[in-house]
Amino acid sequence: MYRTHTCGELNLKSAGTEVTLCGWVQKTRALGGMTFVDLRDRYGITQLVFNNDTDVALCDKANKLGREFVIQVKGKVTERTSKNLNIPTGEIEITVSELNILSESEVPPFIIEDNTDGNEELRLKYRYLDIRRPQLRDRLIMRAHIVSAVHQYLDARNFIEVETPLLIKSTPEGARDFLVPSRLVHGSFYALPQSPQILKQLLMIAGMDRYYQVVRCLRDEDFRGDRQPEFSQIDCEMSYVHQEDIFETFGGMIQHIFKQVKNYELKEIPKIKYDDAMRYYGSDKPDLRFDCKIVELNGLLPASEFNVFNNAIANGGIVAGLNAKGCATYSRKQLDELGEFVKAPHRGIGGLVNIRFNEDGTVKSSADKFFNEEQLRQIGKAFDAQKGDLLLIAADKTSKVRRSLGDLRLELAKRNNWADPNAWSVLWIVDFPLFEKDEETGDITFAHHPFCSPHLDDMQYFDTDPTRVRAQTYDMVMNGNEILSGSIRIHQKDIQEKVFDKLGISAEDRDKKFGFLLNAFRYGAPPHGGCAFGLDRLAMLLAGGETIRDVIAFPKTSGGRDLMMDAPTPVDPKQLAELGIGLK
Amino acid sequence: MYRTHTCGELNLKSAGTEVTLCGWVQKTRALGGMTFVDLRDRYGITQLVFNNDTDVALCDKANKLGREFVIQVKGKVTERTSKNLNIPTGEIEITVSELNILSESEVPPFIIEDNTDGNEELRLKYRYLDIRRPQLRDRLIMRAHIVSAVHQYLDARNFIEVETPLLIKSTPEGARDFLVPSRLVHGSFYALPQSPQILKQLLMIAGMDRYYQVVRCLRDEDFRGDRQPEFSQIDCEMSYVHQEDIFETFGGMIQHIFKQVKNYELKEIPKIKYDDAMRYYGSDKPDLRFDCKIVELNGLLPASEFNVFNNAIANGGIVAGLNAKGCATYSRKQLDELGEFVKAPHRGIGGLVNIRFNEDGTVKSSADKFFNEEQLRQIGKAFDAQKGDLLLIAADKTSKVRRSLGDLRLELAKRNNWADPNAWSVLWIVDFPLFEKDEETGDITFAHHPFCSPHLDDMQYFDTDPTRVRAQTYDMVMNGNEILSGSIRIHQKDIQEKVFDKLGISAEDRDKKFGFLLNAFRYGAPPHGGCAFGLDRLAMLLAGGETIRDVIAFPKTSGGRDLMMDAPTPVDPKQLAELGIGLK
Repeated sequence: MYRTHTCGELNLKSAGTEVTLCGWVQKTRALGGMTFVDLRDRYGITQLVFNNDTDVALCDKANKLGREFVIQVKGKVTERTSKNLNIPTGEIEITVSELNILSESEVPPFIIEDNTDGNEELRLKYRYLDIRRPQLRDRLIMRAHIVSAVHQYLDARNFIEVETPLLIKSTPEGARDFLVPSRLVHGSFYALPQSPQILKQLLMIAGMDRYYQVVRCLRDEDFRGDRQPEFSQIDCEMSYVHQEDIFETFGGMIQHIFKQVKNYELKEIPKIKYDDAMRYYGSDKPDLRFDCKIVELNGLLPASEFNVFNNAIANGGIVAGLNAKGCATYSRKQLDELGEFVKAPHRGIGGLVNIRFNEDGTVKSSADKFFNEEQLRQIGKAFDAQKGDLLLIAADKTSKVRRSLGDLRLELAKRNNWADPNAWSVLWIVDFPLFEKDEETGDITFAHHPFCSPHLDDMQYFDTDPTRVRAQTYDMVMNGNEILSGSIRIHQKDIQEKVFDKLGISAEDRDKKFGFLLNAFRYGAPPHGGCAFGLDRLAMLLAGGETIRDVIAFPKTSGGRDLMMDAPTPVDPKQLAELGIGLK
Repeated sequence: MYRTHTCGELNLKSAGTEVTLCGWVQKTRALGGMTFVDLRDRYGITQLVFNNDTDVALCDKANKLGREFVIQVKGKVTERTSKNLNIPTGEIEITVSELNILSESEVPPFIIEDNTDGNEELRLKYRYLDIRRPQLRDRLIMRAHIVSAVHQYLDARNFIEVETPLLIKSTPEGARDFLVPSRLVHGSFYALPQSPQILKQLLMIAGMDRYYQVVRCLRDEDFRGDRQPEFSQIDCEMSYVHQEDIFETFGGMIQHIFKQVKNYELKEIPKIKYDDAMRYYGSDKPDLRFDCKIVELNGLLPASEFNVFNNAIANGGIVAGLNAKGCATYSRKQLDELGEFVKAPHRGIGGLVNIRFNEDGTVKSSADKFFNEEQLRQIGKAFDAQKGDLLLIAADKTSKVRRSLGDLRLELAKRNNWADPNAWSVLWIVDFPLFEKDEETGDITFAHHPFCSPHLDDMQYFDTDPTRVRAQTYDMVMNGNEILSGSIRIHQKDIQEKVFDKLGISAEDRDKKFGFLLNAFRYGAPPHGGCAFGLDRLAMLLAGGETIRDVIAFPKTSGGRDLMMDAPTPVDPKQLAELGIGLK
């Protein structure tokens, strides 16, 4: 080794010992005949000191060190006179007797500190310098610690990690496949896996009993929001289990991860039914770090001439609202902003009625014309409204109102910092519907994928009222983000057939898309189920990142480009000729 | 859970308890009013017993079970009268009181036992059934245990697992890239990684200090021998290390793997210089489970008129041979076979001279015409020949003789079972040459890759005698198979330039192929080095497989096909149109 210690481990206990350290020069400063150098590595920063009185040449050499030079120093651990108790190594410094420059550095294109002057494009291009910044470095380390905790937990529970292939068959299902031309069979293509879903089910049929894999998945989707063309899943499957076994196993895993990575005791994870999540939070991924439930007013409203409310109810919709605690003093401008927020096309309700419970005891509403103060107070009771509270009420089709109020709930939380940044809300959402009805065409489609098992209790509604059939499908939600999705799978051929029939998937299509799985079901399929964690998002949340790029070593831009490597690029025409393809 | 126990865990201690088991029907047999069923899962086999006297209907149901039906049974653990002490569960059976059929099975296309009637093609097509065979199942489990041991070992030593991208830049270097057309930038392509070599070096420059990854690599090579288009590496890199640190760390890791996976104490791993490996074993991956060194006879031969020997030496070649202990009784036919073996075109020497030290004390040779018995005994001394030994001697160019005798050594070991199947030979091969000279063109090429550091002591020969320069490159060899390859990398810009110059790589090519790595070297590169284990081959050796397909869940055929999924396949022309490519 070039060193005896890292830059993060020396303290007063080592005072007096001779050590050798290596690292990058964070900064140098000359002060009254002394030169101080902050030496950085992955483990921390240690202060080096060079004394002009003792060794002029050495001190001179230290003064010429540039930022990010890689050096090796030998010296003695010495107690500092001026201590920095904010860092573990802050009570000591190294009195240097020998300095070797291992590599010089040009001036870096941006400042290598958490508070950098580099924009994201520049930092992506020089990602190897960006990773030297403690924040990004520590996020990548935390990601690795999460994966390490997963291995510990699952290996101890008889899960077997099995690597499934990357070069698989293209199935025109779900998102778009990345394709890989075959050189040996011109005109044929492999696909890169969107997930190992079918392969892990085959491993259950193969009798592997408990499988997992930290696995890369690839989808050639358009880059909306915080997406990457390649992303990682913690993919898991178990045989001979019911939903409750999955909840216990993977609830336990997330608790283990919290304990290992953040030394945080995550309590038992509550289960919320999909219907309740939609009813109370307007979302299948509610953030419960704060309360603020949606209150439905159908049946609770005083009679009025207010047709916005009356028509919504008459048309089968709902009147519902939120209690924005302590927001009665919102200005006209703030109220208008919230009105515009819910009117955005993807929410599309007509606006919000407000009722303000002022500190002076008065109650005012934008619907004063239709409701007297007593009626407003009556409405307020449904919300347990107190002085200072603001009620925001919408009326429209049920799904629109819920979606809009669900979004509004998050918007209010953001404006009011309702979410404690040190709190964690982790939930199971259960009892999703098996089918969804397309609002426009009325067609039945699957809500997750066609292998999710229905609740067997609900098979009675299968023919008459299919959207009433619940699936044995579940998500885990963390701070309002879906971090896991899974289901108990269908292992009975007759039920699988019924589901395909209901979805209108023809026999030919079944065979083409899922033939090798359906074939496997003919030879003894055990009951099985599983889930997949989105590793990138889980790591982002635990590491406190803003986007999943913050926990990926070499991410791509929203246009799918790798700015560091400069990929994708044109290739040599000979390469294409070998593959039997050409550009159009 | 559908079960209270697995099929591998019950024994006499549980006698009398009520249990529920699930699994596959291995076989059923009716014997004098009783029906016995072997129930199998990943963990073992448990015998079920149904008594016709107690419950006719239940026994009747059991009699109708087919092979590979998936069932659930409830019953009582009972001591067997006729015990099978070869399996952990062999002292008990389950007296069944309830039987539920979870899935039926058609008759499988081959017998699901280690000794199967299915050929490999059929078993690859129905891989999910092949994996039910205990041998393949246990090999996949052992592979997972190896990976688990790797995580344990490296996580405990501050290595950080970092996932590097699969969609990278195509560099026309080494083997052929698999290409992935970009939909967003028509005419541009990603490549799938042949290895994360450059990315892991960038992670060292990024200050990650210790990196590893269990990573898939892809090479679009022609399928010679036991190759797969995708394979797995345990890829590792460390900063601030010398070769000895790598030997200690990864020698320790392989010892840890042996201990964890096979409960075997692997001794300290010897180091053999490349030159010595070639001289004594004719191979850079010698199998030292058996001895039989190559003995060079130049300078030791008695004077003779035997021009085969004399000319080889006069032309700068060697005369060298092996002592095939105890093979003096080889027949003429056997000796001829060995002669043909070394004459094969890729070995290409003219034949073998034999000297037989017979049990009766006589010495005979195929070169009797040129050497009398005393001279033959004199040659025998160099081999420490004893009664019963057979010497096999070749004469030609040094490299040809070594290669041929190296192969012959393995052939003799195979014919004579010299390798103890329970022994392990694990070695480091060190001091590889940095450059190789093409025997035909005389051009200098790199022996490993252009980032391997030369031995700094040898830089004196760099200009005058470059093939004399040793690289800081090393392999680990297990039972004659390379399982690890690595090197200390060049981190000094001036040395990297010298190497590129010597290899005749133009500045333009350097930039095109390695630009983003060379650019990174400008900003402070630490000294670093690493290695990659071939996980498939390591697992194959430890699990006792014949080919790497035996330790891959879903392998491809030698033609690159997945017979189970039927990939690659033609795709929808619309998919190609979206990618801006067409078939030629």
